[in-house]
Amino acid sequence: MKRIKEMLDAHPGEIKVDIDILANCIQECFDTAQICDICADACMGESDAQSLIQCIRLNLICGDICEVTGRMLSRQGGRDLILKRNQIETCIMASQACGNECRRHATHYEHCRLCAEACRRCEEACSALLRAVPVSV
Amino acid sequence: MKRIKEMLDAHPGEIKVDIDILANCIQECFDTAQICDICADACMGESDAQSLIQCIRLNLICGDICEVTGRMLSRQGGRDLILKRNQIETCIMASQACGNECRRHATHYEHCRLCAEACRRCEEACSALLRAVPVSV
Amino acid sequence: MKRIKEMLDAHPGEIKVDIDILANCIQECFDTAQICDICADACMGESDAQSLIQCIRLNLICGDICEVTGRMLSRQGGRDLILKRNQIETCIMASQACGNECRRHATHYEHCRLCAEACRRCEEACSALLRAVPVSV
Amino acid sequence: MKRIKEMLDAHPGEIKVDIDILANCIQECFDTAQICDICADACMGESDAQSLIQCIRLNLICGDICEVTGRMLSRQGGRDLILKRNQIETCIMASQACGNECRRHATHYEHCRLCAEACRRCEEACSALLRAVPVSV
Repeated sequence: MKRIKEMLDAHPGEIKVDIDILANCIQECFDTAQICDICADACMGESDAQSLIQCIRLNLICGDICEVTGRMLSRQGGRDLILKRNQIETCIMASQACGNECRRHATHYEHCRLCAEACRRCEEACSALLRAVPVSV
Repeated sequence: MKRIKEMLDAHPGEIKVDIDILANCIQECFDTAQICDICADACMGESDAQSLIQCIRLNLICGDICEVTGRMLSRQGGRDLILKRNQIETCIMASQACGNECRRHATHYEHCRLCAEACRRCEEACSALLRAVPVSV
Repeated sequence: MKRIKEMLDAHPGEIKVDIDILANCIQECFDTAQICDICADACMGESDAQSLIQCIRLNLICGDICEVTGRMLSRQGGRDLILKRNQIETCIMASQACGNECRRHATHYEHCRLCAEACRRCEEACSALLRAVPVSV
Repeated sequence: MKRIKEMLDAHPGEIKVDIDILANCIQECFDTAQICDICADACMGESDAQSLIQCIRLNLICGDICEVTGRMLSRQGGRDLILKRNQIETCIMASQACGNECRRHATHYEHCRLCAEACRRCEEACSALLRAVPVSV
């Protein structure tokens, strides 16, 4: 999170939310994107990959959505706040769906356990950001 | 759209919406993603790029969101329908925001005019898909 | 390809290669990216998905590489020609690897047959672009 | 890097290179992708954004290439080693091109200074990985 916060501190735009909450959310989005991607590939390498197909699909969907949410939050521009709220909400839903599925496999597969944890952190960081941004625009 | 429809026809999953509406929406999402990306780069090449910064930012945001929406819609998996609805709604918002901004520059820049048109088509295709999918899940 | 060519025509930058060859390559990169992504998901939906894991992995790798190559080629900027050549070469390798794997399943799965065709078109379009760009920079 | 290394440790595939070098490279690719993206947006927010257009373009190209390289390296599959080498080389070129441009603005803009540093770290991590992987396949 340190590097992202340094970049946001150096950004000339006015950032209207608590910068620690924003930096943490961006970081968790990107971390979860990467972890989901590796979890998908790890699931494919298991001898019973067939039974992990739903997990792989949710990993891929969640990874894509976390990544685009992280990118969007990295970009300033105050006029598009409703759009951003909606994208963050989608990211929460994706993290919940993927986290729930990974949790089912967590006792068998360490990568699923780690991924479920990442999804929970991402969900919490997105929820904290939603609470921190102004409701009306 | 022909190629995407062929792929969806060859997909073993049960597709619960009108396949033409789905294929058209995926295609418009990806087309708009590409056009937004080129519009951003074209804006940067204009001698008054400084006055087009808001347009460039919205191009990049809209391009990213259209692309991830197209990818998500390309993937089957019936349990995540609310998530998909939410992502489609975000894509409509992004297309509106980017289209409105591009339209302001449409008389000066052909790339903005073409991009505004693409955003309108994407918005319509996403709205048509939202109407076609079942409301409850 | 028509829409991408229109956008390139409207771009203020000087495009140093044949614009039809460039537009065709960008289009094939993006089309193949989408088709690879759908093929990956379709493979996951087959009852013997386990035997298609290598195909799914190559679909995902090829899809990512085709997409980033299409994006990079959509962006002008003359100084980075060696970098672009190298990325196009990687895209050719990815299309060959994915196409070869898909071809093995083409008689069983129509989505693999269509994907193998897309990979071949992408490989040809990238090769044509490599021949069209100046060798030295 | 800790989280990525944990995921690679939990991956069932045989990883043929030093896992610390691989995890470090993946992490630097993703970190640099994020920092490039924020640098592009920060440059757009500067009052002389017009003079930073080349920097913005290279930020976007480098960000895309770092991200796809990180994703590709997160995925196992031994048969595609030449392809991976080539993508890593492209990532080195992109990091050099972007880092050199950012360095020119480093005394004026802290975000460019931080981005130039990230690009250098990414270049070094990619070079270290290239040295660690077997030359022939």
